[in-house]
Amino acid sequence: MTTIVLFKNTAQATSRRCFMSNLKGLFSAREFHSSRSLHTSSLPLTTWSSRTTGARFMSQGPAGRSSTGGRSSRRGALALSGAAAVTAAAAVAGFLANVNHFQRAEMATLVSRTVEEDQDREEGDILARCRGFMSPPVTDVAVLQGRKGEMCTRMEMLIMETQAEFCKALEAVDGGTFKVDRWERKEGGGGISCVMQDGEVFEKAGVNVSVVFGNLTEEAAKQMRSRGKVLKGKDGKLPFCAMGVSSVIHPKNPHIPTVHFNYRYFEIEEEDGSKQWWFGGGTDLTPVYVNKEDAFHFHNTLKEACDKHHPQYYPDFKKWCDRYFYVRHRGETRGIGGIFFDDLDGPSHEEAFGFVKSCARTVVPCYLPIVHKHLRDPFTDKEKDWQQVRRGRYVEFNLVYDRGVKFGLATPESRIESILMSLPLTARWEYMHEPALGTREAEMLEALRNPKEWL
Amino acid sequence: MTTIVLFKNTAQATSRRCFMSNLKGLFSAREFHSSRSLHTSSLPLTTWSSRTTGARFMSQGPAGRSSTGGRSSRRGALALSGAAAVTAAAAVAGFLANVNHFQRAEMATLVSRTVEEDQDREEGDILARCRGFMSPPVTDVAVLQGRKGEMCTRMEMLIMETQAEFCKALEAVDGGTFKVDRWERKEGGGGISCVMQDGEVFEKAGVNVSVVFGNLTEEAAKQMRSRGKVLKGKDGKLPFCAMGVSSVIHPKNPHIPTVHFNYRYFEIEEEDGSKQWWFGGGTDLTPVYVNKEDAFHFHNTLKEACDKHHPQYYPDFKKWCDRYFYVRHRGETRGIGGIFFDDLDGPSHEEAFGFVKSCARTVVPCYLPIVHKHLRDPFTDKEKDWQQVRRGRYVEFNLVYDRGVKFGLATPESRIESILMSLPLTARWEYMHEPALGTREAEMLEALRNPKEWL
Repeated sequence: MTTIVLFKNTAQATSRRCFMSNLKGLFSAREFHSSRSLHTSSLPLTTWSSRTTGARFMSQGPAGRSSTGGRSSRRGALALSGAAAVTAAAAVAGFLANVNHFQRAEMATLVSRTVEEDQDREEGDILARCRGFMSPPVTDVAVLQGRKGEMCTRMEMLIMETQAEFCKALEAVDGGTFKVDRWERKEGGGGISCVMQDGEVFEKAGVNVSVVFGNLTEEAAKQMRSRGKVLKGKDGKLPFCAMGVSSVIHPKNPHIPTVHFNYRYFEIEEEDGSKQWWFGGGTDLTPVYVNKEDAFHFHNTLKEACDKHHPQYYPDFKKWCDRYFYVRHRGETRGIGGIFFDDLDGPSHEEAFGFVKSCARTVVPCYLPIVHKHLRDPFTDKEKDWQQVRRGRYVEFNLVYDRGVKFGLATPESRIESILMSLPLTARWEYMHEPALGTREAEMLEALRNPKEWL
Repeated sequence: MTTIVLFKNTAQATSRRCFMSNLKGLFSAREFHSSRSLHTSSLPLTTWSSRTTGARFMSQGPAGRSSTGGRSSRRGALALSGAAAVTAAAAVAGFLANVNHFQRAEMATLVSRTVEEDQDREEGDILARCRGFMSPPVTDVAVLQGRKGEMCTRMEMLIMETQAEFCKALEAVDGGTFKVDRWERKEGGGGISCVMQDGEVFEKAGVNVSVVFGNLTEEAAKQMRSRGKVLKGKDGKLPFCAMGVSSVIHPKNPHIPTVHFNYRYFEIEEEDGSKQWWFGGGTDLTPVYVNKEDAFHFHNTLKEACDKHHPQYYPDFKKWCDRYFYVRHRGETRGIGGIFFDDLDGPSHEEAFGFVKSCARTVVPCYLPIVHKHLRDPFTDKEKDWQQVRRGRYVEFNLVYDRGVKFGLATPESRIESILMSLPLTARWEYMHEPALGTREAEMLEALRNPKEWL
């Protein structure tokens, strides 16, 4: 697929430069747009090459420390029943088994491509795998090659792959292209934001990768301690590395739901050189109208990915999702849920990563069949209005409750456009909007007010 | 003016009843829609009649206590230079002197009506004055008559009058009618929300009055103490009464700015029966494009109202407004400001009320001439899009920073629809939106990034 990304003629654009690093030439077909965050325009490019030395990057020890036992009870039994790491091929097979009711024919091309690509994954050469990404990875390829087996490398490769796989699947269905922005963070790290706006199918689609490192701020350490983490810094300093992929897709057609996912990894180095690490994330669906078949497909795809790792994961993380994506002042969940988890630090580093990999690889099979199914559904102005009202609730959740957004807005130097890329292109607030009894709009509200089991 | 308010056929509507109290028959031309907050539908109507006894209502002592001196320095010199209470007629005269550049002819009718009405104010019989309101006042008329001279009564009459005057001026220019909702608060008090949606001129116009009382929650007392207030309760209880009028008007035409105002009064009764009281409020303008003439008119009208009370009020409260309505994560003010003040508890109860009355009575002369001036301005799709992007920023401020909204959303039993009535009907978020240099959109942004002196 060849894509030319056109950039807006903006005032900020003049302060941006491409820094293609040693990967120049690798990504000839897709152009990149490099930017620094608004506050870092005077930052020298050597910030990036300094990472090549690995000086500020923590080396990866053996399996991460398990953390306080109290959290296990919060999220249910986390001891893993010895499940082997799930291959991507298996995940795709699971997906195929569950789309009988979806357009198999339409999906065939996509799936065969996915299977093919998956076989290369994890085994392939770092450089070769990078060729499929939307942009060179955040970390210099030479650094990644130098610490190939470490979790930070494996996770960065996974989130880059997830971004590319999802963006390409969306481009294929929409016909449009993602605008790709690279940005740097003054204190260390940066990100790659892919946004497609006002496409044929998608009103706004954002898929964001970030890899940041440095020392934890006092505020962030305080937040983590309030969640039960015991953190002992050296001279008050807590070097950390955090990375993740997150995405929100708002389609135009009100019969295609909005989807959100986020998978992230965190490492903190303590006084004695040991590390705490954990994974978090989830995938959830926000439809405008209830469609039980879609809901079954979405939840079932997630359940199959979870079940390969632990039978309690799906039920526990489904409940966690309903609790987390809750618009308290409305008494409604944001959507019909999915899974959500945080502080996952067991049963071993390898098995936790295997679970997150399974989850990341369900994103396309969870969502794309639903998009294809409703691609040509007709809709009325009234249905479009209801979608816009639901978009308003989405904004309310994201600005009032979402921990990531709140943390980002309160953090100096954070890239606001990447944080707020989750907001829809358009939204609507009608005073005292309340659907009439017996309508499909009322059916949707009821499902949001009383979360359901969809399987 | 006779208006019939039509109500949507909603599920909630079935749980609402009119409680016209002893004012039935007074408001024959305008119908009311009474509701309780979502959580209070089982509340007996006798809550209202219990106020007739005055048992839960604090009696008004002599001039209120002045509070800690520390706040004076925060907002500048608050000692009043002996200015007499400003009559409404004088305020309107000042308004006339300053609209030479606006359509005098168009405004003539409106102004003469305002002058006429003002002459009746404060002198007239409570019952007669209530006839002009959008709804019977929140407090029973018999109670208001029984404590006619007290500040709680005078302030409730002022906020009801301000609501009515503003709503009628907007209805006259739009041709539409406000939907009037009465609501009750379980713990004591209630409110009257007037909303006009999708009118000819106004996309969404909300004018809300609330009068609430009861005992301060621990959380609210904590917030107030953190602002420097010393509060000594009896048996841990702090009886309070709070009331205010607030409004946000979002017009359709991008050349007509959004306006917001809010005037409020607070009383807390302490252990020894003495009271702390203070006023707060402000009026501010959020245009989509810079119009220096409009900005001058708006700020000058406010300055003239302020100057009659203290020469430092306008400069201090103008700065306070720019600081308060600041979207920190964007580095932009919400609009071009106006005035904002809080904790105004001097130089005397009478003079502070006089100042707030002057402010409340500038709302129509501040805003309506600007509406009339741009009523028939043509606009392009591009201008409409820019308006929608600015509306998005308005939503960001209101949901992320506005103290009133945050407090309301976090408070159980609050009426969400009245709190979020300030949100626009429609808004837009474009990724990396940055106007090209030299455009009128860039001129607007520049004014928001570097607040100006408009006089």
